[in-house]
Amino acid sequence: MEPSKVSFLGPKASFSHQAAVEAFGGSAQLTPCLSFADAFSAVQQGQSDYAIIPVENSSNGSVMQTLDLLADRNEIYADVEVCAEHYLTVHHCFMVRKNTSPAYSSITKLYTHPQAWGQCETFLSKNFKGVERQDVSSTSKSAEIVSKETTECSGAIASRFAAEYHGVDVLAENIEDKADNTTRFLILRNVHSKRSARLTFQDASPSKPSSTALKTLVLFTVDHNSPGALADALSVFKDHGLNLTSINTRPSQKRAWQYVFFVECARVPTPQNQKAVARVLQSLPQVTESCKHLGTWKDRL
Amino acid sequence: MEPSKVSFLGPKASFSHQAAVEAFGGSAQLTPCLSFADAFSAVQQGQSDYAIIPVENSSNGSVMQTLDLLADRNEIYADVEVCAEHYLTVHHCFMVRKNTSPAYSSITKLYTHPQAWGQCETFLSKNFKGVERQDVSSTSKSAEIVSKETTECSGAIASRFAAEYHGVDVLAENIEDKADNTTRFLILRNVHSKRSARLTFQDASPSKPSSTALKTLVLFTVDHNSPGALADALSVFKDHGLNLTSINTRPSQKRAWQYVFFVECARVPTPQNQKAVARVLQSLPQVTESCKHLGTWKDRL
Repeated sequence: MEPSKVSFLGPKASFSHQAAVEAFGGSAQLTPCLSFADAFSAVQQGQSDYAIIPVENSSNGSVMQTLDLLADRNEIYADVEVCAEHYLTVHHCFMVRKNTSPAYSSITKLYTHPQAWGQCETFLSKNFKGVERQDVSSTSKSAEIVSKETTECSGAIASRFAAEYHGVDVLAENIEDKADNTTRFLILRNVHSKRSARLTFQDASPSKPSSTALKTLVLFTVDHNSPGALADALSVFKDHGLNLTSINTRPSQKRAWQYVFFVECARVPTPQNQKAVARVLQSLPQVTESCKHLGTWKDRL
Repeated sequence: MEPSKVSFLGPKASFSHQAAVEAFGGSAQLTPCLSFADAFSAVQQGQSDYAIIPVENSSNGSVMQTLDLLADRNEIYADVEVCAEHYLTVHHCFMVRKNTSPAYSSITKLYTHPQAWGQCETFLSKNFKGVERQDVSSTSKSAEIVSKETTECSGAIASRFAAEYHGVDVLAENIEDKADNTTRFLILRNVHSKRSARLTFQDASPSKPSSTALKTLVLFTVDHNSPGALADALSVFKDHGLNLTSINTRPSQKRAWQYVFFVECARVPTPQNQKAVARVLQSLPQVTESCKHLGTWKDRL
């Protein structure tokens, strides 16, 4: 069978690229996108079987841009659904140009993405106090820059994946302050795609067995003028035995101070709750203005 | 009586400064802060009677940094509470150096905060296609820059408030794409402050009468391993007749994938619900790991 086509947010060797390799294995055909919106479009238009998109980081919280695309306020991604998730532990390394082995004290310039400085503060203040820092658009880019450096003695902070991709030497590993900084990715497919219905990409990361629990993501809006509407909508999940695991709120963009709500819930499948999600989706329209099932998938946490 | 001391996020003539003037009037002593954290500290330490902090924008959603400070995970702002809110409509103007009256076609450079470019796209693409754009750290700063410009013919995008503060000429008003782009500010005080208990800053913005409704903000965490804990906590509000108006979620920062929840609820006071908030706060500890009342104030929407 033809390999899966997967879109991820570029550049190559980004954390999204690494997540795609981990989730889909080496045989998939991975394509970098310029934006999250492009990845959604690729799935909607059928150019990709899947897209893999960061939705939440354990330290920084939800990725608003991804939620806004899932909200799909202009109904341009109507056929995109979530079919799986993938957790990527974010490890940073310190790296330099191949075969140069400089002492830390001879490094005169550092490159990385603005967010990574803050995530490696302990390592940086211990080893590189006062050294010039240059922001770049991605950690992968910083690895690429030092790989081509010829005039200066510079270092980059990026993943081991990016170091290997760009062929630079890792001098220190796991330099992040927080050992358990993890990003959760959602994997998207087109509900009408027969190809992705057949493919079993889950087998690509056999190291972590799936739990038996299933997660479901539902989006809804409520009538802002109806008191208790939000509480009523949330009660529906509880009434059908679904455990709410997270709630996110975004502006509706239609009227100020009206919201779209993202509710994620989990259940361990039993004969009793087999139809719980279907029943929730049947009941929600009675207490919401609009609602949409964004997908159900195996819990990978 | 001594005027109120109010901290806001600087620089001077920022939107926060404008919100402070609108909410507290001209007689208050307004002090710019370098960061949101400094404004929280000023209230906690008693250097300010109040701080005014943006918490939500009608288009962009919640301000995560403000939620994280309210979560107060290290308990350094234990005495800070929300005592009021203020809504500021965000209007942008196009401005140039005083008494220069240039034609649009002679403007060679534009200055503003990165967010403002996106908010004024229609105006910019109609009048300034291809003109060089320079990002600056605040819209107020852009007004200041053009006020001092001597060599170039440049323009800035900022508020009328900033134009007046920096003494520049407004050539076009309300150039924003979205007419109802509004930012909600919270006003903070120290629960132990006798001064701010006495002061009645609400009277400073008499143009908008308060509705009779009261809003309450409560923060809580639930046991992640207890199924239904979140739904149970939310039910408590409903059981006591409080209407949930918004929910926000942030990482707990203690363990990955555990959250702090911010629930805002509203009620029109009646003899029956007078003690509703107190009862909610009494019941919540039975279904949450921790909970905190962050304040109750008059609805100003």
